[in-house]
This record gives sequence, structure tokens and C-alpha cells, in this order.
Amino acid sequence: MNVIERLADLGITIPKPMPPVATYVPVVIAGDLVIVSGQLPAIEGKVAVTGQLGAGVTLEEGQHAARICLINVFAQLEVAVPGGLNRISRILRLGGFIAATPEFSQHATVMNGASDLAVAAFGEAGRHTRSTIGVASLPLDAAVEVEGMFWLG
Amino acid sequence: MNVIERLADLGITIPKPMPPVATYVPVVIAGDLVIVSGQLPAIEGKVAVTGQLGAGVTLEEGQHAARICLINVFAQLEVAVPGGLNRISRILRLGGFIAATPEFSQHATVMNGASDLAVAAFGEAGRHTRSTIGVASLPLDAAVEVEGMFWLG
Amino acid sequence: MNVIERLADLGITIPKPMPPVATYVPVVIAGDLVIVSGQLPAIEGKVAVTGQLGAGVTLEEGQHAARICLINVFAQLEVAVPGGLNRISRILRLGGFIAATPEFSQHATVMNGASDLAVAAFGEAGRHTRSTIGVASLPLDAAVEVEGMFWLG
Repeated sequence: MNVIERLADLGITIPKPMPPVATYVPVVIAGDLVIVSGQLPAIEGKVAVTGQLGAGVTLEEGQHAARICLINVFAQLEVAVPGGLNRISRILRLGGFIAATPEFSQHATVMNGASDLAVAAFGEAGRHTRSTIGVASLPLDAAVEVEGMFWLG
Repeated sequence: MNVIERLADLGITIPKPMPPVATYVPVVIAGDLVIVSGQLPAIEGKVAVTGQLGAGVTLEEGQHAARICLINVFAQLEVAVPGGLNRISRILRLGGFIAATPEFSQHATVMNGASDLAVAAFGEAGRHTRSTIGVASLPLDAAVEVEGMFWLG
Repeated sequence: MNVIERLADLGITIPKPMPPVATYVPVVIAGDLVIVSGQLPAIEGKVAVTGQLGAGVTLEEGQHAARICLINVFAQLEVAVPGGLNRISRILRLGGFIAATPEFSQHATVMNGASDLAVAAFGEAGRHTRSTIGVASLPLDAAVEVEGMFWLG
């Protein structure tokens, strides 16, 4: 499996990752476990999709945001993991945080924007567990945030 | 410890697990670590408790929902883990997401519906860490969602 | 590294940890992995910072709350881990839950109250991943809740 090539086939070039904006770091590796900090739908340092699902942000925009978040997760992994994305043997879990109104109920559809890309890029190794929830708000007014756990073993 | 028998003593039969509704999977096993996707309070494929705590859903209904979510977590484990529930040596963590109003403050009481069942079913091995938060909304208007991490070692 | 001494230099004495308030436990250790339940900004058993960011709670109060939450995480570790805080080799991840309005966007600044303390206390070993989200409400009307994952290896 060459993840970078699969992503290229999908028209996705892994961007340079965002630098840490505080005292935390984007990736920690411990044994075979790799944890990636929650990533926003930022493109070239600017959050590209802001607002709430159910209050102006459409399903399609939400899915696009979730996909950008996961591309940013991939960007962090490519730089931080020795051997890069190809070294990941399994996506263990994605956490999807969707900025949403109390009435919104299609969080799963939004998060599929990330999940579908995970499987398209990693194949069977990309079939992950996930938890998707609707939150009141996110940093920088982002519409979606995605975090991840990965396995090297 | 026979978890299935303990559950039967509690009047609980493990249901057939819900099939995955998207490209994610209900359970991933990596080394001794088992991660289960967030489960909704669904019975036979239909979310049984919808709405928000603090806006119509009572404490008792919320606890009932949390309990159903954990039963659905158990159902996924029973099918996905070789050896089933009896193979779990420890419940590491439960994450409890409670759809709630900004004024609601009894999230812990709601989540006890899951935590009490965890200990009733697994005994000491069921004594888990947990984080409980109040979210704006959940997939399919569910009142509660519960995710879990387990250990085989 | 002596974490207790570093904390003392910062004017922080580790308090006695809060006893579990339900059937869950504050800390679980599995292999090299240590998981700590979500902690509230409680001082001597009473939540010290209540309310929402964006609706009365200031940025400074929020940062103070995040810092107290992490001190309470440390208090749980000091008691539950054989060898105490000095036995921790890495802070893997902090989860920051900020009770916030839909309009609030400075969650990262609030959570820095915890992240900055993590690095001040643990140095390089304190450089963690994190996910920070704005939630509708938290147990006992707390303004912030912080959970953690740690490594012994």
C-alpha cells in the first residue's frame, strides 16, 4: 500500500502541516500507538469552513470540512512519523466534532467526509472506529474538528 | 467471571449488534487494546431515546438511554472480539456524551446508567475511567452516546 | 526530572484527590498506558469555576479553571500510579472540554491554562497532543473539564 499515491489518485496533495500554535504538539508516538491532536479544516493557515451545521453551513460544506480536517491529520502524520503515512498499519479511531445546533441530527453524514477518505487512502487499514458528536462551538469558529489514533504494529 | 451470565441475571440479553452505517467499523483491536465506536441508544435499529436532557428528556430516561448505549457496546464486543465479552480483562474508559441544554448539570447521574451496568456485568474489571460531557446534539437526535476502550491483556 | 519539585517551584501543592463520586474510578493503568477520568475545576470538593465561556466566564477565569482541572488530574496520578507523578514518562494527550456559547471561538486560549502547566511541570515529557472543543454544558455546571492519557514506558 502506498498511501501517498492513493491520495494523489484522489487529487489530494498532502500539505505542509500547520505548526503548533501553543505548548501542545500535533503528534505523540508511544510504543505502537500514535495520537494526533484535533485538526481544524484549515487551508494554508486559515480555517476554510466556519459556522454551525444547522445554522448556515450545509451538509456538503460540512463533509468538505471533515475531509480537510483529515487531510490535515495526514499532513501531521507524514511529517511526524518516521516513514510517514506508509508506516501506519491501521487507523484505530477518528473523533469527529461537529459544531451544530441542538436541532441538527445528520452528524454522521458530515463525518463521512473524513471516514470515506480514510478508507479511500488506506484501504482495509483505514477502516476505523469513530465517535461523532455535535458540539456548541470549536476553536476559531471552525465547523468541524477531527482527531485520530493510529497504530504502527 | 462469566459476563453473559451476569447480564442474564440482570435480565439483559445481548442483542444482535447494529451493522456499520458508513465506512467506519464498530470495533478495532490493536495489540491488547480494543476500541468501540460511539453507540446510540438504539433498540432493533431505531433510536429509543431522543431529545435533550434539560429540555424534555428526564433523568430516568437519560439513564435508561446510557444503559442501552452500553448494552450496544457490549453487543459489538461480543461479536468482534474472539472469545467475546468474557475475553475482556478490563474496561479502560467509557466516554459519555449527553445531549443537554446549557443549564443542565446532572450529566454524571445520567452516565451512571452506563457505569453501574459496567460494574454489575464485569465486577472489579468493570471499574473504568470516564469522561462525561454535555453536547449540543447527537446523530439521529439521540439523547446519549457512549464509546469505550477495553483491554485484553 | 522531579515533577513535584517543579510544581512546588510554580507554587503548586498537589491536593488530596477527589474520591470517586460513582462506580467509575479516577485512574486505570493497562500496560504502559494510564488513563485519567475527566476532572473538574474543583477545589476542596467544590467546583470553583462555573458557567460558560462567552456568557460571563472570562478568558482568565477559563484558563484558571483549565489549570485547576490539570492539577486535579495530577493529584489522581500521584496517588494511583506506583511511584507517583515522577513515574510518568510522557503526557500523551489532554482532552479539553470548554463549556461555551455557539459564538465563542477562543477555546484554545482557555485550554492553554492546562497545556502550559503540563510543560512547566514535565518539561519535554509534558509536550502532549490535545483536542479542545466547546460543549453545551458540563457536570455540576463546571466551566472546564480536562481528561488525560499518559505513558509509563
